[in-house]
Formats: sequence, C-alpha cells, structure tokens
Amino acid sequence: MKKTDVLVIGGSAAGLAVATTGKSHYPDKKFLMIRKEEKVMVPCGIPYIFGSLDSSEQNVLPADAIYDKLGIDYNVGEVISIDKEAKKCKLLDGEEIYYDKLVLAIGSTPVVPKWLPGTNLDNVCTIPKNKIYLDRVKDKLQNLKKIVIVGGGFIGVEFSDELSKAGKEVTLVEILPHILSLAFDKELDKMAEDILTNGGIKVNTGIGVKEILGDGEKVTGILLNNGDKLDADAVILSMGYKPNSKLASEAGLRINDIGFICVDEYMRTNDPDIIAVGDCAEKIDFVTRKQTGIMLASTACAEGRIAGMNLFRLSVIKTFSGTIAIFSTSISGTSFGAAGLTEAQAIKEGFNVVTGTFEGMDRHPGKLPDMHKQIVKLIVARESGVIIGGEAIGGKSVGELVNLIGFIIQSRTNIYTLQTAQIGTHPLLTASPTAYPLINAANIVAEKIRFEYVTLVYKY
Amino acid sequence: MKKTDVLVIGGSAAGLAVATTGKSHYPDKKFLMIRKEEKVMVPCGIPYIFGSLDSSEQNVLPADAIYDKLGIDYNVGEVISIDKEAKKCKLLDGEEIYYDKLVLAIGSTPVVPKWLPGTNLDNVCTIPKNKIYLDRVKDKLQNLKKIVIVGGGFIGVEFSDELSKAGKEVTLVEILPHILSLAFDKELDKMAEDILTNGGIKVNTGIGVKEILGDGEKVTGILLNNGDKLDADAVILSMGYKPNSKLASEAGLRINDIGFICVDEYMRTNDPDIIAVGDCAEKIDFVTRKQTGIMLASTACAEGRIAGMNLFRLSVIKTFSGTIAIFSTSISGTSFGAAGLTEAQAIKEGFNVVTGTFEGMDRHPGKLPDMHKQIVKLIVARESGVIIGGEAIGGKSVGELVNLIGFIIQSRTNIYTLQTAQIGTHPLLTASPTAYPLINAANIVAEKIRFEYVTLVYKY
Repeated sequence: MKKTDVLVIGGSAAGLAVATTGKSHYPDKKFLMIRKEEKVMVPCGIPYIFGSLDSSEQNVLPADAIYDKLGIDYNVGEVISIDKEAKKCKLLDGEEIYYDKLVLAIGSTPVVPKWLPGTNLDNVCTIPKNKIYLDRVKDKLQNLKKIVIVGGGFIGVEFSDELSKAGKEVTLVEILPHILSLAFDKELDKMAEDILTNGGIKVNTGIGVKEILGDGEKVTGILLNNGDKLDADAVILSMGYKPNSKLASEAGLRINDIGFICVDEYMRTNDPDIIAVGDCAEKIDFVTRKQTGIMLASTACAEGRIAGMNLFRLSVIKTFSGTIAIFSTSISGTSFGAAGLTEAQAIKEGFNVVTGTFEGMDRHPGKLPDMHKQIVKLIVARESGVIIGGEAIGGKSVGELVNLIGFIIQSRTNIYTLQTAQIGTHPLLTASPTAYPLINAANIVAEKIRFEYVTLVYKY
Repeated sequence: MKKTDVLVIGGSAAGLAVATTGKSHYPDKKFLMIRKEEKVMVPCGIPYIFGSLDSSEQNVLPADAIYDKLGIDYNVGEVISIDKEAKKCKLLDGEEIYYDKLVLAIGSTPVVPKWLPGTNLDNVCTIPKNKIYLDRVKDKLQNLKKIVIVGGGFIGVEFSDELSKAGKEVTLVEILPHILSLAFDKELDKMAEDILTNGGIKVNTGIGVKEILGDGEKVTGILLNNGDKLDADAVILSMGYKPNSKLASEAGLRINDIGFICVDEYMRTNDPDIIAVGDCAEKIDFVTRKQTGIMLASTACAEGRIAGMNLFRLSVIKTFSGTIAIFSTSISGTSFGAAGLTEAQAIKEGFNVVTGTFEGMDRHPGKLPDMHKQIVKLIVARESGVIIGGEAIGGKSVGELVNLIGFIIQSRTNIYTLQTAQIGTHPLLTASPTAYPLINAANIVAEKIRFEYVTLVYKY
C-alpha cells in the first residue's frame, strides 16, 4: 500500500505550481506527482516547435530538476479512478495510492466536434499538450504544403504565423466575424488580420466549416458553410479545448454547466480534500463574476500557487479572485496583448462603458532604432471609472505592458488613479512620459466623461 | 498690457503636461507658455544624440503641433521676475504678462561644483537640456579621443556607453563605491559595471575628483583624490542637477532645505495661485515621506498632469502621493530598471526589510531566440509584507516590467497579493508562468518570512 500526503495528478503548469508552492509551504509533507507524459511540454511554447525552435526537445518543461531539489516525488502513470471515501486513487497498472490531499491538475483536450464529418481522416490534427503526438504532427507536416487551420483563436493564429514562415501555404478559417475576438475588439483584430494577410496567409472569417473532405484515407480539403471548397494536404483543428473532468465526475465530484470541475476560491472541489486547478477547474470571470471557459497557463499557475498555499491551512488573503484572462502574443514581429473584457463583451454583459484609445510610439524620440507603434485601448465602467479591460498592440514590451494593465484591472483601479500614476520611461525601452499610451488612454476616457457631464449640466 | 488665465513658464516635460492637461480640463481658459528654447529637447533622449541618433534635430520634443491643435499659445522668451501681489511676470525684453494662475516648470541646471578647480577650461562640458549647447558639445567631441566622465548616475552611464560605442576612449569616475547606487543595490550595480568594463570603458569607483587639469586654455586631464592623474581631451561633468528656484525665491516663494520650490500635494506653492512642477518643485519620497532630490521626466509628467487637473478646481483623488522614482536604462543591450527604495536605502532609513531575488529568463522556453536573463529583486517591509522597492535586469521588456513594479509599490501591495496575482505570459514576450521572476521573488520573500516564523515558534 502506497501512501502520500499530497497526490498531484498532472505535471503541466498547474500541477507544477501546486507541487512546488505546496512543498515550500508544507516542507514536512510528502508530495507525489503522477503524470501521463515522460516529457512535459511548455504549453504556450507548442506553436514554436513548428518554426522558431528546432524540435520539441527544446520545449520540454525543465521541472524534474526542481522536484528533485525540493524533494517532490514524481512518476509517469495514469490515474483511472478516484475513491474519495477511501481517499485513494487507482492507476492503469493496478497500483493504488492513498492520499491525504488530492490535487487534480488534469488539463484539457482539444475539441473535435462530433457533428463535423471527416475528422478521423489522416493528416487531420489537433494540438494536444502531448510531445509524442506533436512530434508526429511535425513529421507529417514536413512534406505537406497546403495547410488549413480551423479556428482563429491564439493557437490557430500562432500556428498560422509559424507554419507560413516555415514555407507552408496557410489558410485560416474562423466562424466568427474576426479572429482573436475573445481578446480584442474588431478595430484591433483587424490589425492582426492584416499582418497575417500581408504575410501571405489567407484569412477567411465569418465562415464555418461544414465537412472535412478526403479520399477515404487522407484529407484532401474542406467544405465551407457557403459551399466553397478549399484544397488541403493537412487540416489543423484549433477549435478550443474542453476540460478533462471525466475522472472527477466519475468520482462523484460536482461539475459545472460548461464541464469544468466546480471549485471555491481556495480551489477546493465539493470534497474538501480534493483540489482542482488549471484547465480542468471551474473559472469565474473577474469582472462579470460568471463562469468562463478561458484556459491559460498563467491563470493555471496563479490557481496552482493559491491551492498550494491553502492545502493544509487556509489563508483568507490567499484566494483566487477570478480569471482576468491576460493574453499576449506576437505575430510577425507585432505584439498583441489584452486583459479583462473587450468593449464588445462589456456591452453585451450589460456594462455602461466608456473607452479611450491612444496611439503612440514605444520609443522616444521616435527616430530611435527598434521603434514600434504602440496602441492602448482601455475599457472603463462609466459610473465608477473602474478599468475593466485593456488591449495593447506594439513591440515586444507589450508582453509586460499588458501585465501592468492586468494588475490595474485586478486592483480595481479607476482612471483617476491611473491618470495620476507615476511611470518610468526610457528612450530605448518605453514610450515618452508625455505620450505614454496607457496614461493617455485614461486621459481620453476621463475627458469623455467630463465632456458628457458638462454637456448634461448645460442641458438641464 | 498682456493677460492670460494660465501662464506656464517652461516648455519641457512638466510644462507640456500642465498645459495640455490643463487646457483639456479647462478649455475655456486661455493658456500661454513662455519657454527659453526655440526647440526643446526630449530630456531622456539627450545621451542618444551622441550615438544612436544622427543629430539633436531627431530629439526635438514634438509639442508645438499639439499646442496648436489644443489652442495653447506659446512664445520663446525669458521670465526674469514675478510680482505675486500684482500677479504679473516680467520678461527679459521688458514685456509684462498678467496671469490668473502661474505655473513654474523651470527645470534644473547641471551641478558645477564651486570647490572643483578647472571647470571653466575649454572642453569641460555639462549636460544641460539646451539644444544649442549640446550641439556645440557634439561638435567639440567629434575630434577628441579621450573622454573622462565624472559622475556615475544614469546620465554618466548612458553617456559612457554611447560615447564608447562612437569610438571614444571613455573613463567613468564615481566617488561612491558603485555606479547607479541611487537605484540599485551593489550586487546588481556590479552587473552594470561589468557590462561597461567589457565594452572597453574604464570604470573608477570609490574615487573622487580633486582638480580638473589644463594647459591654461584647454583641459588636459583630471587629478583624482588618490593622487592619480588621468589624461583627457574632454571632461563631462554629470554630477547631478540643481533645481532652478532663483526666480521663485526672489519672488518670495518658499524654498525647501535642499533648494526646491515648496509645494503641496496639488503642486501649489505657498502662493495658492502659483504652481510648481517638475525638476524645480519639491519632491517627497513615496515610501520614506522625506524630501528627495531625485528628478525624472516621468515624475515631472505625473506632477504636471496633477497640477493641470487641479488648476481651478481641486479634486481630492487627484493628488501627488510622492516620488516613487521609477528608473530604467539600457546599457549595451542589457536593460536595468528600479522603483522605490534599494535594500541599502531601506535599511538606512530604518526599515526592517526582507528581500527576495529570482533569476530566470525573459522568454520561455529559454531556447527561443532573443532570450535574455531576467533578474528581479524585491525589497519588502517585514511587518506588513508591503513592497517598498524593486530592481530588475533583463532584456528590453524591463522598461515595462519596472512600471508594473512601480504600480505595485504605488498601490502599497503586499507580497501575498503579488503571490496570488495573475499575469499573462507568452513564449516570445515574457518569462514563463511557472518561473516569472517578479512572482517568484515574492515567493522567496514569503518563504523567508514563514521560515523565520516557524523557527521562532520552535524556539519559544
């Protein structure tokens, strides 16, 4: 009979964060991690295996050395059932492990729609976080030319960009009117679309896929909703991910309406000794307070840290306050970042919003080498002035700029605080202090609110 | 008799921010700016005139088009006296201008120590924000080889780097044990020194200058405190700046102990109709609440925005809360950023501090091109866990990363909030979510505090 204090199932970002944070907080407890893969992929690095990196070997999460150092045990294996009354898990090889606390960090699986014919044809691929599968995809794509990517979210866009750079003929198909519309409003989406198009990628938006066509064995193309056919040597489905919650539901744990394992702000399931974190765990939107399906490795890590801290002792100041959804990506040298709600989402959710967009430069003076245009859009709740969303486009500094915007949203900062905030600026690193887009976007929002107020005062 | 509602003296960052913010808040008021220079330099861009930029023309603040658009009048001229009872200013050409509100954004002047012999020799230069003077310096340096720079603050370091790249033999002399010690603790300072040294710059720290030597006309070298002599074709003094407060003191305004014009949190002097902003205005440190002498264009802009908002109507939520001093710079491709107090300063000021330093990478996986080591150090007040300082070294994203740290300090965030904070990460733009140096530095601090606590509990 094997026994551990903490059993962590899953070795990706969330599992790693729980195990390392937990062990640091409770050094006397025994931690054991069971994961399916021998070598775990850095999740957001996966698109870059297909271009910028030589192979998937360069994208392996360097976690084992950390576990060894901290004294965390780990094994490759698959848990097939949980007995929450007896507090034990059963593995595929028949082994049973007893736990005091169980952590489910069991991730998500690419969506393959049942209604879509042809998905089991050869050369139709998805993008799971699985090194062996991905290596096979990479091998296959090597000698194929025409690639159709279905789904214009971040994964679809990043794959399009990488594969196009690698010399493939890429067509991106998105059923919504714009790509990346979870993160960006349409005027900013448009810039991403233009960059892809200028890079030689065909972008088809507002059109769904009806069928994947094949010769009985291999894929040959796709049929669109409008009747058009596109030739394809390979099709990549990036149509979202669904949480891996089967293990939990079979164990009798509560699952929410959209398939995620229900958790509270300490990341506990309805069994107080079972914790769920990462893609499989329920997410509540920070602003709307509704369930959301957005899965991000960075959110998973925040959840994992919080779960690790609260494993054996609760701390009221260490709770998860809801998903802010901080995205960033880089497409052909232009970086895109977003946090919180888009304007369109905020309006749809019932917020009375004011927005401000400022376009500047990320170096000053603008004549310096390496300068990139920088655009910041802020989405603000009119009554309180609280910032509920932000979008940024620019050079590589957008990655950290959007983290600043995310922190601002998380702190429920209002535009007046942002207007009076101090920032540091440097010619070679940032916009100028007189035209710093984030602050100037807040100024624009404040001016709009002031102007409305003055207009109303004059009117009544 | 000329009259304006708001008279702004000075056209650099602070003056620009007051005028544009003020006009936006009070569009019915008449704004007039009087500035000394026809063409105003982007202040922090000045070092780059000497290398990365072709000429000072590329470093001109593009403000006039903004003033024209907003309806702000501006003139070149010099105000020589203020009559605060009559509410008028007198210009060098004899003109008098009456004002309702007067804004002093009159900047600072390079320090030239009176005790230092030889400062008036030819080819001894300072770095004022004056295009004509700087153009003359650039012309002079053209045919000179050996440059000694006195003072290892940001200006001294940036000039060293730029001039060395332009082929000069540069020696940097700093009287303190380390360069940049206002912003960085010594272990991080050391990295900046190493980069300069590897770039061929001689760095002499812990040694003061006794005399500037010459042939009666031109400079020939410097004599150090330890008796050593250094040859020099030119000497650049970057020994700090003193606030331009003479105009204010002659007008009977209150001046603080270190020479700055006294102001309150709305940036008002002791005359409620006279406002001072930027380098000339008193600064209180955000953390220590003591007077500070740190002058930054970004601080000046924050002060300017606040002054502009409060010109005719006060708003309690739009006050200046004290200088956080957010610095950033880039030396030969490595970027350095700092906000708040260093560990050494915090200890000296009487804080009981815990620090945490994490070294990671600013891309993930680390095999991606363009990867740079990233180090973050946090300085935390032990009792409250509130973050009072941060230092970062890495690639160019450090410019925005340190703005995030600055905002964290400004929000009086504690490490537990930071540990549970969500950040966005992307392989091409940021560190990984599992090893994000800012969060991991907070984890290290928290672990130290926990460990101390456990040790104490066991002991007593």
